Amino acid sequence: MEHILGKLFNPESVAIVGATPKEGKIGRAILENFIKRFHGRIYPVNPGYDEIFGLKCYKSVTDLPETPDLLVVAIPAPSVPAVIREAAIKGIRIAIVISGGFRETGTPEGEKLEKELEEISKTYGIRILGPNCIGIYDNWSGVDTYFLPKMKRPPRGFVGFISQSGAFSSALMDWMAYHNIGVSRAISYGNKIDIDDIDLLEYLGEDEKTKVILMYIEDLKPGRGKLFIEVAKRVVQKKPVIIYKAGKTSRGSLAAASHTAAMAGEYSIYKAAFKQAGIIEVDSFDEMMDVVRIFLHQPLMKGNRVYIVTDAGGVGVMLTDALTSVGLEVPQTPSDLKYILRKELPPHCIIENPIDLTGDADDERYMRVLDILIEKPYVDAIVVVALPQIPGIKGSFIDHIIKLKNEYKKPIVALTIGSEVSLEVAEKLEKGEVTVFESPERLAKALKALYTYSIIKTRGDHHEKP
Amino acid sequence: MEHILGKLFNPESVAIVGATPKEGKIGRAILENFIKRFHGRIYPVNPGYDEIFGLKCYKSVTDLPETPDLLVVAIPAPSVPAVIREAAIKGIRIAIVISGGFRETGTPEGEKLEKELEEISKTYGIRILGPNCIGIYDNWSGVDTYFLPKMKRPPRGFVGFISQSGAFSSALMDWMAYHNIGVSRAISYGNKIDIDDIDLLEYLGEDEKTKVILMYIEDLKPGRGKLFIEVAKRVVQKKPVIIYKAGKTSRGSLAAASHTAAMAGEYSIYKAAFKQAGIIEVDSFDEMMDVVRIFLHQPLMKGNRVYIVTDAGGVGVMLTDALTSVGLEVPQTPSDLKYILRKELPPHCIIENPIDLTGDADDERYMRVLDILIEKPYVDAIVVVALPQIPGIKGSFIDHIIKLKNEYKKPIVALTIGSEVSLEVAEKLEKGEVTVFESPERLAKALKALYTYSIIKTRGDHHEKP
Repeated sequence: MEHILGKLFNPESVAIVGATPKEGKIGRAILENFIKRFHGRIYPVNPGYDEIFGLKCYKSVTDLPETPDLLVVAIPAPSVPAVIREAAIKGIRIAIVISGGFRETGTPEGEKLEKELEEISKTYGIRILGPNCIGIYDNWSGVDTYFLPKMKRPPRGFVGFISQSGAFSSALMDWMAYHNIGVSRAISYGNKIDIDDIDLLEYLGEDEKTKVILMYIEDLKPGRGKLFIEVAKRVVQKKPVIIYKAGKTSRGSLAAASHTAAMAGEYSIYKAAFKQAGIIEVDSFDEMMDVVRIFLHQPLMKGNRVYIVTDAGGVGVMLTDALTSVGLEVPQTPSDLKYILRKELPPHCIIENPIDLTGDADDERYMRVLDILIEKPYVDAIVVVALPQIPGIKGSFIDHIIKLKNEYKKPIVALTIGSEVSLEVAEKLEKGEVTVFESPERLAKALKALYTYSIIKTRGDHHEKP
Repeated sequence: MEHILGKLFNPESVAIVGATPKEGKIGRAILENFIKRFHGRIYPVNPGYDEIFGLKCYKSVTDLPETPDLLVVAIPAPSVPAVIREAAIKGIRIAIVISGGFRETGTPEGEKLEKELEEISKTYGIRILGPNCIGIYDNWSGVDTYFLPKMKRPPRGFVGFISQSGAFSSALMDWMAYHNIGVSRAISYGNKIDIDDIDLLEYLGEDEKTKVILMYIEDLKPGRGKLFIEVAKRVVQKKPVIIYKAGKTSRGSLAAASHTAAMAGEYSIYKAAFKQAGIIEVDSFDEMMDVVRIFLHQPLMKGNRVYIVTDAGGVGVMLTDALTSVGLEVPQTPSDLKYILRKELPPHCIIENPIDLTGDADDERYMRVLDILIEKPYVDAIVVVALPQIPGIKGSFIDHIIKLKNEYKKPIVALTIGSEVSLEVAEKLEKGEVTVFESPERLAKALKALYTYSIIKTRGDHHEKP
């Protein structure tokens, strides 16, 4: 049987309660989104209209000509429980409640409404995402309740994003659109009275369109910790799960309590749980996106031995510090390799790792060294530093690097710093799925995450295969 | 008397030994740089030519019609000592030796040549920058030995950069050009047989065109540690000094030894020295540039109490964690302020710090809250989070924020995440000297550096005024 959440992401029909032609209204933005990209049947529901944007509009859910797969609700909070009950009676099995005005208000009325909604959900077995959420942005089915017309939509792709913060999730979609990072499905689940992080993690774990899962959480629902670890353990054997936990400090968890009424709790417990589950935890916005990028395009690492090829000695030193600091190894060049490199390179080049091709390097010199390195079994990953301000770099090594990475299935990442001349190199490499960084320290952290996941995955492959 | 290094940056005349019209040669790139932007007299020196690019060319330094203020040397290493001796006899007092082929080669010949050069410098009292360096890029005088035509030149401005790595310094210039960060003078000093970090730090400390000093170092010359601390202590009372130390780990310092023959030494000693001197040490490429940006445009902080105004609760939580983690305070809103904000804001807004204007915020709401906050004596800095994907933000608050910052001389920084819609907000704020970030964690680190320097500066103002 299909997972019930399948209807959330892949419905054949959707009813939108609160749909309206009124400028600036959430119900209009959502209806427009669906009209633009959703290929199933769309039913606007609003007693005030007979038709909206050429679609027949229904007075109520009861009046609908069929039982839609999915219900979207964007009306004032006090009217929500009745509509959900009606929908459940009609046979609708799952709903996204966008409306705010529930527990997050901190008022007794809000609290009461939320309880009521929860009761209805349980009594009638209708599943609810929300309330007080932005909902779903599904890049494959066209389900899109992100009611922010100014938000640019990222291209179709393979990152699944689960977020406890609505605004952050929409800003991140916008950011990923700008950086051309493809998204499969994004979910902002709001007050999570029913469907929560764990349900969504499980679903995206099975989802073939999702290759990397990113989560922003402030808290888990009480009593769900053990299940979370169980589910995550299964999912990480299929794909990497990256998590950013907000409310880590005591002051931060107080802020989280104001924000989503989250009981952010002892961070050390979360941290231990993530580790036990094999989840990659990230500590900053930058790391979050760096790690996503490296997982999207890099194969796993067989060990932690990293070789650096550079035209800038200083950046080689910076990288050596950074990689060593996160626990990766920058081995000294073994004697067999030294022998080969010494013959291959001009005498002023440094054959010790980081291998410094120096400021008179050209594309040819890079390619010769990379050809040698990639074959060595003791080279687990290569970092190519190419500061292309020097005259010798014309960019002909780019295709070669891409070819080597695909052929040998070894991680190759690159670092470049500068203006258009660097950005052009970066763009071409990225297009060929060679991940590019401009910060040695960020590169090191991302590569470390790749290595950590490689261990988790390999361990699972050996011991936990079903 | 003028500081001798004045001639390095502000010569009235320069001779370029090794100047040539030959395509792709360093001597040509340097000559072209000077012709393009230097307003003093230029003397190419090369026995092979009578004229280069319309300038009379001289057979030797001895033949020059005057004693130039500055000599630039870009010829093969073995010929360098003789030329420097000749120049010293001619009365030239300072030279930039671009040529490589000295101690950095690790060969006995290179070592010998460098010793010889050092001897001549001492015997004749001719000061030398280099050898094996890129030299000077001076944005005010037009002295420019950065022989990399592909490197974009940053705009005129107030960042002084001293670098032990040539390639990194040119990549950084290129990067700063792209990011429109103004540079006063950049120096790559290579093997530093004579002029070193300390001389340059002292000079930039007095330089009125330099407001922020950034240093990349791998080592200090032996025996210069105490002097370095003394000089730095004086300089930091005038302007902030930011340092990035490479070769921090034992593996990294081995790499540094290969790179610049640096004796990177015990990092803990360096770290303690930086702290004692009041230097701001940064640990990553990102932090380096973030801290430079915040120092360029933000006034000092009177205390460490930071208030956050946001339209995204999640980002408020992230920031609270990040600020708290670096030791800044995110105070809970005092009751007098709570009273005012409660009257001013709709009931669903959160008046606890981080003050959450929520997703239906508009420019007007931001301005009202900022007007109230900026006046409070217990508010030491304000972080404005504006995720402009929400419909209410039109951008009219931008000028208001800039006005408040200028009027009250309090640090205001901003955070925004997204595509063009965010970048536009960011660009306008930056133009008004409100520093903008997209990462909560990076913002926090930069603000912490500002606070640290504020303490150093204030302490000096009280106790160490001459």
